[in-house]
Amino acid sequence: MIDFEGWSCPAPLRDTPHVVAGHGGGGAMSAELVRHLIVPGYGDAGGTADRDCAVVEAGGARLAFTTDAYVVQPMFFPGGSIGDLAVNGTVNDLAMAGATPLYLSAAFILEEGTPLADLGRITAAMGAAATAAGVRLVTGDTKVVGHGNGDGVYLTTSGVGVVADGVEIEPRRATVGDAVLVSGDLGRHGVAVLSCREGLEFGTTVASDTAPLHGLVAAMLATGADLHVLRDPTRGGLAAALNEIAATARVGVELTERDLPVPDGVADACHLLGLDPLQVANEGRLVAFVDADQADDVLAAMRAHPYGTGARRIGTCVADHPGMVVARTALGGTRVISMPIGEQLPRIC
Amino acid sequence: MIDFEGWSCPAPLRDTPHVVAGHGGGGAMSAELVRHLIVPGYGDAGGTADRDCAVVEAGGARLAFTTDAYVVQPMFFPGGSIGDLAVNGTVNDLAMAGATPLYLSAAFILEEGTPLADLGRITAAMGAAATAAGVRLVTGDTKVVGHGNGDGVYLTTSGVGVVADGVEIEPRRATVGDAVLVSGDLGRHGVAVLSCREGLEFGTTVASDTAPLHGLVAAMLATGADLHVLRDPTRGGLAAALNEIAATARVGVELTERDLPVPDGVADACHLLGLDPLQVANEGRLVAFVDADQADDVLAAMRAHPYGTGARRIGTCVADHPGMVVARTALGGTRVISMPIGEQLPRIC
Repeated sequence: MIDFEGWSCPAPLRDTPHVVAGHGGGGAMSAELVRHLIVPGYGDAGGTADRDCAVVEAGGARLAFTTDAYVVQPMFFPGGSIGDLAVNGTVNDLAMAGATPLYLSAAFILEEGTPLADLGRITAAMGAAATAAGVRLVTGDTKVVGHGNGDGVYLTTSGVGVVADGVEIEPRRATVGDAVLVSGDLGRHGVAVLSCREGLEFGTTVASDTAPLHGLVAAMLATGADLHVLRDPTRGGLAAALNEIAATARVGVELTERDLPVPDGVADACHLLGLDPLQVANEGRLVAFVDADQADDVLAAMRAHPYGTGARRIGTCVADHPGMVVARTALGGTRVISMPIGEQLPRIC
Repeated sequence: MIDFEGWSCPAPLRDTPHVVAGHGGGGAMSAELVRHLIVPGYGDAGGTADRDCAVVEAGGARLAFTTDAYVVQPMFFPGGSIGDLAVNGTVNDLAMAGATPLYLSAAFILEEGTPLADLGRITAAMGAAATAAGVRLVTGDTKVVGHGNGDGVYLTTSGVGVVADGVEIEPRRATVGDAVLVSGDLGRHGVAVLSCREGLEFGTTVASDTAPLHGLVAAMLATGADLHVLRDPTRGGLAAALNEIAATARVGVELTERDLPVPDGVADACHLLGLDPLQVANEGRLVAFVDADQADDVLAAMRAHPYGTGARRIGTCVADHPGMVVARTALGGTRVISMPIGEQLPRIC
């Protein structure tokens, strides 16, 4: 228990009275900060503030509402930029609730001295991504901070979409027996960003997988299957996404290690840097939990969609070890896929 | 015309190829950046992206949707903090469209090393402000940047509300003959923030006016009056708000200088620092344009509300000098109240 002046934190935060990089990593430390400091601070006003995407009622409509801040560094990387990332990421948070994305807002925090040409490239990328995703950028804000109080452009997008009646896609609905599907290979975004940071150049170029996934979700829903859970494995990668679902639904997840699709370029970079590819961020992939007997139909629909050609089944939702994710290795043993604690790759999105 | 590599700006931005403080001031340079760089970058996806608050249709509901980034420095100041400012400011953007605010999101960009106790004080202030305003914090995000790439806490809030049928409150509706009303005295927020910056201490303490204004707007609407325009005069103050309305509606605005309510503490601080109180930010005030024959009813309703006790009429919407704001002085002459160009007080909100 950290003793704050005038503010007491109801549960222990790890060993630090200050913000550290790990609080932004999307793993256990991020979750602790949100659950034990931010949401309690909100009090009665923040009952659902720990959700990536809220589904709420307004004026008789069933809305999805989400927000994400983007601080990726560098702002331009193989396969994308902070601009398309900020549009696609918010579109995807809406899509993971089964929503049709409609409107986006964009708030810029600009560092003094940032080239306006960079800002122009970013807004052009945002416009192209929004047009491709069929969403409209309808409102925004621009603030400027002094040189040395920012780092180029920070960009927060929020999104609003509509959720059809009957669609209930939530982590708590993961059910023993569900097939666990993934829409494509893993780790491209994180390695793409890392590959162009100063002093870290690999032989192969891995491009970010950034993409809008609501069309893929619509194709999956069109099969008539009851999708229980959808999640885009961004910060913290597949490991964080599956651990969060397992913990929320109190189920176990069992993966088959040889079915986990890690491309060679990602595997090589991770090997070199000592990273776990299952903890590396993706920005154009989704994980789905679906009734096992509907899994083949859903997989076929995914593979027929441009953003799901690499879809495959990677595991099963099990009654054993609730809250835990394990992988069966090629040798017949199992290893635990643990929740990342802190920050493996800072400022990846 | 600035020649960007790979990106050409369709209209001149003032003399700089880089972001400068003035781009964040809420005056002419901010407007140029949005109109000539950001919105054109968006292309077809950004038709209304220059609006503070968009009114859109979703699932049969008429929604207001807005976003604002907050970078105020220092984060705690007399009368408030970045936390209540971020809640009230977004509530007010919704209210200025005549919306009932319902849901807020909050995205944090935290600098490494920021005391968690500060974050706790901020989230507690957000929760208290949200509860007071009757809105719910339903979703959020948290990112961390390195020490020296931020400045404590940057906070972006977005908001969703519903707009009743028949309510059409927009700058373009300002009409010749309208009475121009203000809900209270001017300049408190800007002076409050400035007063506690290092090395700038005044004899008197002026507290920020930060407050949620949707209840006041509801009271004004309840009179049955046709409110044409509402605006909260934040960055750039009353001068920026009125100039923007005058330019949008192609009308003139004539103020009576002696009716402009500037409290002594604000006047003293502005005199000392060479600031124009009409350009200083407010965070709990609104300006209204309303039919002159309904103005007395609206003023009475405003004065009966806790956030409108200081309401008064300050001027008239005129056919002369369209796009321009002038004030009649005590000596019988007139002076032009011009649009602020750049940044008088950086990081005021």
